[in-house]
Amino acid sequence: MDFNGLAQQFTEFYYNQFDSDRSQLGNLYRDESMLTFETTQLQGTKNIVEKLTSLPFQKVTHRITTLDAQPASPSGDVLVMITGDLLIDEEQNAQRFSQVFHLIPEGNSYYVFNDIFRLNYSA
Amino acid sequence: MDFNGLAQQFTEFYYNQFDSDRSQLGNLYRDESMLTFETTQLQGTKNIVEKLTSLPFQKVTHRITTLDAQPASPSGDVLVMITGDLLIDEEQNAQRFSQVFHLIPEGNSYYVFNDIFRLNYSA
Repeated sequence: MDFNGLAQQFTEFYYNQFDSDRSQLGNLYRDESMLTFETTQLQGTKNIVEKLTSLPFQKVTHRITTLDAQPASPSGDVLVMITGDLLIDEEQNAQRFSQVFHLIPEGNSYYVFNDIFRLNYSA
Repeated sequence: MDFNGLAQQFTEFYYNQFDSDRSQLGNLYRDESMLTFETTQLQGTKNIVEKLTSLPFQKVTHRITTLDAQPASPSGDVLVMITGDLLIDEEQNAQRFSQVFHLIPEGNSYYVFNDIFRLNYSA
């Protein structure tokens, strides 16, 4: 699969899993993985899953607006940047977000090495 | 310098150079560098500089809202995600943007391997 197809497949899987049961996202991270979620920086599968599951909302929906990918290394790494909308619980207004994933190949799959997430606040 | 300091220094230099004379940004790219600017994908210093200099505005100002960095490899690569505002020519309303840089060390400096830029359109 080319890097664009991989990026799209990964991102759809990630947000579907996040929105249905984010406690299961641990399979996508490793002990060296890093997550920046707003101003919080974490490393390692356990810390990352704890952070994601502790986020204070019950229902969440990610809607992708743009998805762009590039090869990030000769060994098959892929960089993905997503912008989109986040709908939380019963709120009517979506929040804009930006997120980047750096994916590293492992066997027939990929894991997340870098993950940076930011809401886009209005100036 | 730690990766946070490097990311901040690089980003300030990049946007200052972009906003004052973007024809000089070529020094920051190499032939293997990639730029995704909105829906356009380019590779190589020459193509990237041609794209940046052909953008249809005279005056431009980048204002950083958030800047987040992570180490991206054992060899010193750094990943930076920026969200911010773009002020173009005489327009009164800023446009929101998101950008990611993957920086690779080279001697005492860094060059841009991956560069993805997107305006954040309202849904």
